[in-house]
Amino acid sequence: MTKPMRSENFSLFPSDLKHFCKEVIIEKFDENGIELIEDDVIKEERIEFFLNGEKFLSVMSIAQDQDAHIVGFLLSEAVIQSFDDVDNVNISEDGLKVNIVAKISQEGYANLFKEKTLTSGCCVGVTGNADKSFECAFVNTKYSVNANDILNNMRSFNQPSNLFEYTGCVHKAELVLEDGTIFTSEDIGRHNAIDKVVGLACMAKKDIKKSVLYASGRLSMEMVVKCVMHKIPIVVSKAAVTFQGIKAANEHGITLIGFARNKKMNIYTHSGRIDV
Amino acid sequence: MTKPMRSENFSLFPSDLKHFCKEVIIEKFDENGIELIEDDVIKEERIEFFLNGEKFLSVMSIAQDQDAHIVGFLLSEAVIQSFDDVDNVNISEDGLKVNIVAKISQEGYANLFKEKTLTSGCCVGVTGNADKSFECAFVNTKYSVNANDILNNMRSFNQPSNLFEYTGCVHKAELVLEDGTIFTSEDIGRHNAIDKVVGLACMAKKDIKKSVLYASGRLSMEMVVKCVMHKIPIVVSKAAVTFQGIKAANEHGITLIGFARNKKMNIYTHSGRIDV
Repeated sequence: MTKPMRSENFSLFPSDLKHFCKEVIIEKFDENGIELIEDDVIKEERIEFFLNGEKFLSVMSIAQDQDAHIVGFLLSEAVIQSFDDVDNVNISEDGLKVNIVAKISQEGYANLFKEKTLTSGCCVGVTGNADKSFECAFVNTKYSVNANDILNNMRSFNQPSNLFEYTGCVHKAELVLEDGTIFTSEDIGRHNAIDKVVGLACMAKKDIKKSVLYASGRLSMEMVVKCVMHKIPIVVSKAAVTFQGIKAANEHGITLIGFARNKKMNIYTHSGRIDV
Repeated sequence: MTKPMRSENFSLFPSDLKHFCKEVIIEKFDENGIELIEDDVIKEERIEFFLNGEKFLSVMSIAQDQDAHIVGFLLSEAVIQSFDDVDNVNISEDGLKVNIVAKISQEGYANLFKEKTLTSGCCVGVTGNADKSFECAFVNTKYSVNANDILNNMRSFNQPSNLFEYTGCVHKAELVLEDGTIFTSEDIGRHNAIDKVVGLACMAKKDIKKSVLYASGRLSMEMVVKCVMHKIPIVVSKAAVTFQGIKAANEHGITLIGFARNKKMNIYTHSGRIDV
């Protein structure tokens, strides 16, 4: 029915790894200044799920186990009761479409499109609005920040907050404005933390066009979309970035920085805003 | 219009911290066996967002900066263009309802309910289906596992995969069945990784009622819901758990284990399945 199952601990060969990654040229900053290097970053893709011929969902994920993903998702949402309900599941040649033919619960299927509760792990990017408004947007703010200032800010940002120390369970976002004002917020979800910190700044009637966003989580495309929507020119994380994140940042004028740790950081796009 | 803004680095007092947490009694396992201790865990809450009198979204998050959250969210989704479009925003006394009165883009608002793309940070728990099917479900599978076996499995699970080492950007889930079969999957999203691993096992026609799920991310309620839906009796993470996660695990018969690191782990619920 599908590809063979992987029923033991799997380990990918280096050549397989490339399949999920994209090679990019980045600027690596350290004590000796900036160096251009090649680097591989993970590539998330928009996988389309089709159920009995009808497209019902797009999911940003990596193109691996897509058939298992749709099966697990439908089980988990009670649209199917067991794998016995599945007649067929297959993956398109390019890996981006998954088609499943299954006996479904009509009620369960209808509910997929009703109540919308964003889970703690997620938020935003759920609509096409952002896509549309940001399609032709380019953030060309002339604003530059010293590389060492960013690393210094990152160090204090990385001090665990009381709430993190207490629970080990929150993400944090911080917006540092040109005039030195700092807004900080935390949440269980990394998307929520960013929405909150932007909200705080806007509610304080602050102009955030010249600011740097520090985020505790990985920088995937949704984060870059948020920066574009809010015209925040620079975003920094100690964590990794994804390929779609880099692509969007490049196209829309965002300076994207990842792996900012100690005295190093990787500048993926629009490094002109970083003074060395 | 709202509460005063926090425009500088904020630090919560220990008494404030309690506000976001819930005290629970847990069983702490280490080399000396099990000890009952009190512990505080983060409490996510379902916050309801109302726009011009109409409820339009529920978000699982922590009850802090809720007003900023709704403002940031609407800006980010292009439903409002700037904070000038907002006439009023207020938070209900219990902190769980946020009401915003604003001039909105009708098109943007309509789009909020159209296209649904799950972002890499999220997945599932988006519908009411799971809630409904799991409401009266209780996983009472008699299945026990030795505590040290769990810690040993956790050690090998925690070995970074090639893809993680390569990119620093993926979550992992592993399902270890009673017969020793192991299914593993990875994805950018922690929810996706779990859906995939369950899908793999089901597609291999394996019974997962006696299995342990290892997950690299935090265990919030959505993860427990998945375990209940799939009747996986035990779930383990090296990361933190949330209060709603504990509550759901307790009510629905799931053995929930967090902070499983080296020779220690916290057993939050249904410890009867863990042999010491």
